[in-house]
Amino acid sequence: MAAMSDHVADRLHAAITASGSLACVGLDPRPSLLPPSVVEEALARHGDTADGVASAFLAFNRGLIDAIAGACAAIKPQAACYEAYGWQGMRALIETVAYAHGRGVPVILDGKRGDIGSTAEHYQQAYLGAAPGLRTSAIPGCGADWLTINGYLGGDGVLPFRDAQARHGVFVLVKTSNASSGELQDRSLQVGADGATSVMQAMALLVAGWGASRRGSCGLSDVGAVVGATYPDQARELRRLMPDTLFLVPGYGAQGGSAADALAGLRPQGDGVLVNSSRGIIAAWQKHPSGGWAAAARGALDAMNRDLNRLR
Amino acid sequence: MAAMSDHVADRLHAAITASGSLACVGLDPRPSLLPPSVVEEALARHGDTADGVASAFLAFNRGLIDAIAGACAAIKPQAACYEAYGWQGMRALIETVAYAHGRGVPVILDGKRGDIGSTAEHYQQAYLGAAPGLRTSAIPGCGADWLTINGYLGGDGVLPFRDAQARHGVFVLVKTSNASSGELQDRSLQVGADGATSVMQAMALLVAGWGASRRGSCGLSDVGAVVGATYPDQARELRRLMPDTLFLVPGYGAQGGSAADALAGLRPQGDGVLVNSSRGIIAAWQKHPSGGWAAAARGALDAMNRDLNRLR
Repeated sequence: MAAMSDHVADRLHAAITASGSLACVGLDPRPSLLPPSVVEEALARHGDTADGVASAFLAFNRGLIDAIAGACAAIKPQAACYEAYGWQGMRALIETVAYAHGRGVPVILDGKRGDIGSTAEHYQQAYLGAAPGLRTSAIPGCGADWLTINGYLGGDGVLPFRDAQARHGVFVLVKTSNASSGELQDRSLQVGADGATSVMQAMALLVAGWGASRRGSCGLSDVGAVVGATYPDQARELRRLMPDTLFLVPGYGAQGGSAADALAGLRPQGDGVLVNSSRGIIAAWQKHPSGGWAAAARGALDAMNRDLNRLR
Repeated sequence: MAAMSDHVADRLHAAITASGSLACVGLDPRPSLLPPSVVEEALARHGDTADGVASAFLAFNRGLIDAIAGACAAIKPQAACYEAYGWQGMRALIETVAYAHGRGVPVILDGKRGDIGSTAEHYQQAYLGAAPGLRTSAIPGCGADWLTINGYLGGDGVLPFRDAQARHGVFVLVKTSNASSGELQDRSLQVGADGATSVMQAMALLVAGWGASRRGSCGLSDVGAVVGATYPDQARELRRLMPDTLFLVPGYGAQGGSAADALAGLRPQGDGVLVNSSRGIIAAWQKHPSGGWAAAARGALDAMNRDLNRLR
């Protein structure tokens, strides 16, 4: 029996196979999405403070992770939700990542970071690697498996995130799910040597280049792409430009994308796409209050899995 | 006498006038840039841990702020340097911002955040505003005056950062200072209705639009632009497209830009540009060890001010 590959795309691929799920659950907590019991307990312990919100987020996330572990491919915490509550929020984020790893769930940190090379190194240290100490010790970071990044600064803001063994990976924004994404991403280019006809195509070709020769045994590389479910025609076009790239697909469900839309970028072999849903799962208790919030989340995830798998 | 305007560009303009300086000091601490005395004290108190690094960063920043307050226009902490040390690093960042405000120094937080609208709101809460609590209280964020942001997602990722009174502002990445910035930013566009001939020009015109009708009494808006000192020809071209936009200019000094390069985007009236230097100031003690690290930073800042002011 072959040793399990430590390549980040292979680890994710294994989680997809084991769970039978292409779903990524967005852990994007907000006070308005918290179940009353979680709110009450946090208020009783910490009052209505940053500590209170952070402890409520962590309790909510732990319950959600317990409910969804094994039935999804990954979780994707949205960094901004935690950063809004200062260092206390960041601590809850870091503890959420550790908890997911304890349950064997891969973590995609949605931070959309992007900076010049020397600064990109610090983001790599913060979220995927370890940072130098005052003397010699390496101080471990958040330890996510993947980080979303913004490639507007070009390659020297992206390459510092790659490591020799591809133990960690990135998803680079190519075509985002929001209404105004076309203001820049859809602009038509004068065709150059690479043949790109739009800004998003130029970014897609950069992504394909950054990931070239970095494929795991599953055939996918450690440099993925964010491609919104709300633009399925573009997803098909982008798949042709990025044949070996894992697509992280936001915009399913609450943002308007259907299962068919979300899977528009599937590879011919029926993989290569990870579909995110956040509010539709973590706030399912608001629509289905009986049975508890964790069971409601699991029920919504099971329904999402059925919705996606009938089209694979 | 007119009341002082609370518009963020007016507050920055007032700091420029009072200090006679166009300099922004980048507070980008790294263990390798810390003076030995700061390292020793942190090690003695906290050991070689995230707490140790964070406490060293904060002590270093306080000493630097004391030395440069009144002689620079603003400070610009690079978020990644702090995030690399987890929540302890974030706490040091938040305390640095508060300390600078206590000394009357405007703060530009360099986070290069960028996301869809609902997420951009959380970043606004985190760094410029306040976040909702579990019940009703607003939990104050980091309280920076400005935040750098990435406009790749278009307007709905930018507009949530603006507030009605323009008490806070953003700098949107247009042309960054790094070597590979041209991979996307320099790509030639098919000319559309706005007349932009490159990706950076399209972004510049978006920035000008987002800032239209949002000028303070100084004539500059609350939506600024990042324009690297390493590309002075582009800076002059971008100034024509963004006549009322404050330019935040990285790349002076260590990255290779001269004073003339850094000031290429000055408005005709000799303002509208803020020039950042980080390592050249905060690590000046490594080149001029006698007299102490804080005095070395002040000496380097004074030299930078002379270098810039002879060209205004």
